[in-house]
Amino acid sequence: MAGKDEFVTHIAKRGEDFPQWYTDVIRKTDLVDYSDVKGFMVIKPYGYGIWELIQQEMDARFKATGHKNAYFPLLIPESLLKKEEEHVEGFAPEVAWVTQGGNEPLAERLCIRPTSETIICSMYSRWIQSWRDLPVLMNQWCSVVRWEKSTRPFLRTSEFLWQEGHTAHATPEEAQEETLRMLEVYRDFAENVLAIPVITGRKSEKEKFAGAQATYSMEALMQDGKALQMGTSHNLGDHFSKVFDIQYLGKDGKQEYCHTTSWGTSTRMIGGLIMVHGDDRGLVLPPKVAPVQVAVLPIAMHKGGVLEAAQRIAEALKAAGIRVELDDRDTQSAGWKFNEWEMKGVPLRLEVGPKDIEKNQVVLVRRDSLEKLFVPMEGLAETVAGLLADIHKGLFEKALKLREGMTTTCTDFESFKRGVEGGCVRAMWCGERACEDEIKAKTAATTRNMPFEQEQISDVCVHCGMPAKHMVVFAKAY
Amino acid sequence: MAGKDEFVTHIAKRGEDFPQWYTDVIRKTDLVDYSDVKGFMVIKPYGYGIWELIQQEMDARFKATGHKNAYFPLLIPESLLKKEEEHVEGFAPEVAWVTQGGNEPLAERLCIRPTSETIICSMYSRWIQSWRDLPVLMNQWCSVVRWEKSTRPFLRTSEFLWQEGHTAHATPEEAQEETLRMLEVYRDFAENVLAIPVITGRKSEKEKFAGAQATYSMEALMQDGKALQMGTSHNLGDHFSKVFDIQYLGKDGKQEYCHTTSWGTSTRMIGGLIMVHGDDRGLVLPPKVAPVQVAVLPIAMHKGGVLEAAQRIAEALKAAGIRVELDDRDTQSAGWKFNEWEMKGVPLRLEVGPKDIEKNQVVLVRRDSLEKLFVPMEGLAETVAGLLADIHKGLFEKALKLREGMTTTCTDFESFKRGVEGGCVRAMWCGERACEDEIKAKTAATTRNMPFEQEQISDVCVHCGMPAKHMVVFAKAY
Repeated sequence: MAGKDEFVTHIAKRGEDFPQWYTDVIRKTDLVDYSDVKGFMVIKPYGYGIWELIQQEMDARFKATGHKNAYFPLLIPESLLKKEEEHVEGFAPEVAWVTQGGNEPLAERLCIRPTSETIICSMYSRWIQSWRDLPVLMNQWCSVVRWEKSTRPFLRTSEFLWQEGHTAHATPEEAQEETLRMLEVYRDFAENVLAIPVITGRKSEKEKFAGAQATYSMEALMQDGKALQMGTSHNLGDHFSKVFDIQYLGKDGKQEYCHTTSWGTSTRMIGGLIMVHGDDRGLVLPPKVAPVQVAVLPIAMHKGGVLEAAQRIAEALKAAGIRVELDDRDTQSAGWKFNEWEMKGVPLRLEVGPKDIEKNQVVLVRRDSLEKLFVPMEGLAETVAGLLADIHKGLFEKALKLREGMTTTCTDFESFKRGVEGGCVRAMWCGERACEDEIKAKTAATTRNMPFEQEQISDVCVHCGMPAKHMVVFAKAY
Repeated sequence: MAGKDEFVTHIAKRGEDFPQWYTDVIRKTDLVDYSDVKGFMVIKPYGYGIWELIQQEMDARFKATGHKNAYFPLLIPESLLKKEEEHVEGFAPEVAWVTQGGNEPLAERLCIRPTSETIICSMYSRWIQSWRDLPVLMNQWCSVVRWEKSTRPFLRTSEFLWQEGHTAHATPEEAQEETLRMLEVYRDFAENVLAIPVITGRKSEKEKFAGAQATYSMEALMQDGKALQMGTSHNLGDHFSKVFDIQYLGKDGKQEYCHTTSWGTSTRMIGGLIMVHGDDRGLVLPPKVAPVQVAVLPIAMHKGGVLEAAQRIAEALKAAGIRVELDDRDTQSAGWKFNEWEMKGVPLRLEVGPKDIEKNQVVLVRRDSLEKLFVPMEGLAETVAGLLADIHKGLFEKALKLREGMTTTCTDFESFKRGVEGGCVRAMWCGERACEDEIKAKTAATTRNMPFEQEQISDVCVHCGMPAKHMVVFAKAY
């Protein structure tokens, strides 16, 4: 069919030009568009629909772990941002500054939040008085601005949408427990909702968050062999508490500093799910965040009863809690529609035509395998729900297998260099910053994290040969 | 009880100092706090919880009327803001300007969106090509910044949270239909969710949105006799389409300009519900947006079986979809808790103690009437759901009665002046801007809107005596 070729030739092949494939997919499937402001993206309804589903799933998990949402100001006074030294060093070079409000120049510059630790800590310092006020468990959904020179939609933009959790605790142990609890919430979400297998572990000192005591991350491997940091959870120790004076009166009558944490994930995850699951035909959406789970296409729509049957089916599936779109456009051919829904990554395409009605069946086409199934009308909602679950499982397993195939365990630097060209490398590291810098200079690979599941691959550092301290996952990263 | 007095004396009396009462209520009930940036508020979890419920209810209504959410950039280039003349005149004096990104001064200033017509229209101009692309029906949930000199949390702040709908249509008729449809969605929401009766109608030329062809609003009357604009819906005609070149190819092959609309409501509505329903004891929350609908208080908690019974009740109510908080704090007395939940405006307080368990009953106290009810355990969830519905109805009726009592219909300017001192006035107006300005100068009252339900009260303008054109609702306003 002409329509088919027309569509497919619009998208670059992953194997030939992965960055171009990514750009083609996000633009042609109407996820995003570029705006009049350099580095700022518009998230179009189809892309925002994915974000809304991500938000719903995550928000429910945050609430189930005792967190409440709040909203803190967009703008932060320069003096506040500068209070924590490491933090300002990390963020000052990339913030946007407001210098004028209305017709008046401002006495003090205000930055648009790049992250909200400083403004939130300054409020916590007022709110927290006694052990009775602890723990404080809050989260915020908002946009943040980090001025970037080179941007790519979802992966790195000057503005992005995210959630940032901020908590305060009485003891270091509770703060550490919270830090790891939220990382686990992230892992569970990535694997069980986005169908993306992730490696969880601790970041090196070099890669940790500006001002944190320890940063933990979840990392995923994309199809081009590069890693993507999908979420981070920071134990801030008492660093911010001391700077912002967050103290509480303990049960024993003594004043103590709180221990705080913060954790965040963003629209970047959408970039991740595109690069993990997509194929040469376009998007492949994991069913749990697909804005449309089933596209219902009446075939030979002009024939009596077809449109009505499609409508009945769509309603029945909706009633069963499945996200359905009935494509009853008479301006496009069926072939054109097949290709569009395929490109848009809808997990299941449902076709119903005169012959199907006769046979009391429908045709289902799986996006993941492109398999065509003839399915009886009876029990359709259950069949569809089962297939969606199966597609999720299949996507996860495929991604896991792909990651395993692209992961090398290395004990010498030559194989390390080859390994990071085509995926990630598990190797031992001495723990020294200078060695880490050299590895990056030589290979462009960075330490992604030190996985919780450690294994003593060798006794010496893969690069410098000094005694090994940690098993690390290295990769080039977005 | 000491606790009771202690609490109540913390809040000013509405009749003595309404602004102070408002400030006391929002601060002491933990809805908001002031931040380190003048004019910017922090919305605390209890306040944000109300906003989340507002969002859920509204978002469902927007989607049911065919709208989809999207996200547009926070920053707007100065040249874009300046494209529509009236619009820039209206907004330029109150925007915040970003002049530096990272370490570089910007070539062109960017303003933080005060509203997004300009940036959205510039995208619509790219996206809309043909009649097939219409209508475009989008909404955005975000924060906006308008630099204000004098601020009050929820009512007027330099940053606030809101939703802004933006739509494009083929014909003027469709745009007008959409404008009125969304105003009706707002009215339905205000009355059936917030329990606030509103007057819907058209704004005068003076009071309309900068750049609109016509603005419609819903207006509510607060207990102090001042009006609050709770939401607006604008028919932008083809003004923005012509400026931003939003054209489509019609079925007839001709290029035509689109007709656009925009409509918005904000966290200001939370200020409204506080000032409509609150009393001298604090907040009175309409049940549909109360983050906690029932506070469950175990009485004599140390006695065997009491806490367990309270837990069982809380679980049963939750299972029935009711928002419940079990207050099992052992750090506060029952009397203190009664007062706190009362002040926080929770619609129902449920007490259960040893005697109640014996009698297989609970005690329910209504926040609106303070009435105490002894209710059998059997069928409790239904009883509670019925009471919540009854409280909603009661709040609405009380507010409507109050508004009617504070509304005067005037045909002479002396009674008009008295009328706007204690509420709103229905009167005839000549339709002239100069007359409207004089009325404002003399009385501080403004035209709120020209209600859809017009009545010919008199043949002449209440102020200038010239032939009357419209019946208008006048009031001093927030």
